[in-house]
Amino acid sequence: MKLLEERIQKDGRVLNEDVLKVDSFLNHQIDPELMQAMGQEFARLFANEKIDKVLTVETSGIAPAVFAGLALHVPVVFARKNKSLTLPDNVWTADVYSFTKQTTNHIMIDKRFLTAGENVLIIDDFLANGQAVDGLLTIAQDADLNVVGAGIVIEKTFQKGRQLLDERGIHVESLARIKAFVNGQVEFL
Amino acid sequence: MKLLEERIQKDGRVLNEDVLKVDSFLNHQIDPELMQAMGQEFARLFANEKIDKVLTVETSGIAPAVFAGLALHVPVVFARKNKSLTLPDNVWTADVYSFTKQTTNHIMIDKRFLTAGENVLIIDDFLANGQAVDGLLTIAQDADLNVVGAGIVIEKTFQKGRQLLDERGIHVESLARIKAFVNGQVEFL
Repeated sequence: MKLLEERIQKDGRVLNEDVLKVDSFLNHQIDPELMQAMGQEFARLFANEKIDKVLTVETSGIAPAVFAGLALHVPVVFARKNKSLTLPDNVWTADVYSFTKQTTNHIMIDKRFLTAGENVLIIDDFLANGQAVDGLLTIAQDADLNVVGAGIVIEKTFQKGRQLLDERGIHVESLARIKAFVNGQVEFL
Repeated sequence: MKLLEERIQKDGRVLNEDVLKVDSFLNHQIDPELMQAMGQEFARLFANEKIDKVLTVETSGIAPAVFAGLALHVPVVFARKNKSLTLPDNVWTADVYSFTKQTTNHIMIDKRFLTAGENVLIIDDFLANGQAVDGLLTIAQDADLNVVGAGIVIEKTFQKGRQLLDERGIHVESLARIKAFVNGQVEFL
């Protein structure tokens, strides 16, 4: 997606050979117009699929996911990372290891919001090692959902997430695919 | 906002005399069309204000805030609740006590995303005791921002948040104002 690649070139900050910060438009400050365009692009990329619901994980997946849901005319469910005192016990859960934070999060979705046989599209902001998407796939499998694909905002193709999803037969569409960070610059595939 | 009140009556769950759960359309499962309508309504309610930026707090504020930002054609910044290892030290912070979870969260916004003199609209999902909005007001004061108002999705008028904001001279607009929960039913003001 040209608009996104241009924005990454303009406003992304390469911190080292692994880490790209996009907190000025995606995951701390958010550009709503860009999010809307991304949501429409996800809807176009998965136009041939029957989709009943969009799944994502808090926090950074929410903005792209709600615009994908809007463009697809379906509800969005985001997995929560921490157990709130008022969240019911009746939840699907999975463990997600964060390489960035070096911690394992429990993600969970209330069973009331997932129905066996539903066709779901997973949306997330980054695909790096694939842990967050993998956690959602675990929940989808446990809840007997049909995963029609995964829509990713930024894929780091040099990490193992894409291969992991390809091996599991998941249809992945990424709006920007990064080959490498070279001398502080982003090189797209 | 009639559409929202009807949805609360239909899908909200009154757990006790203080707690309303709206996790089927607002803060776990999200209805994107409703969020869009709410964003447009916030833009209409604050149409007479000059607004440079929308501020909110993760997680549940993000969906209404991005649609308010879209309707107002301004960026959105959400305060983060936990210090990520990769978040820079250069942040504005405030403490927010959660009566629901009985914990104090540190909220923080990267100083790069707030500029002295900016006109900001605060958006949040609930106004109960006013702690989250108060935390954002603290950050706004420290960062020398001009708060043009607070747009709230659901206000519980029987708790002290509204009075706190009125006393501080904040222009508050709530899309649904709840008077009380009576016999498990929601009564609007």
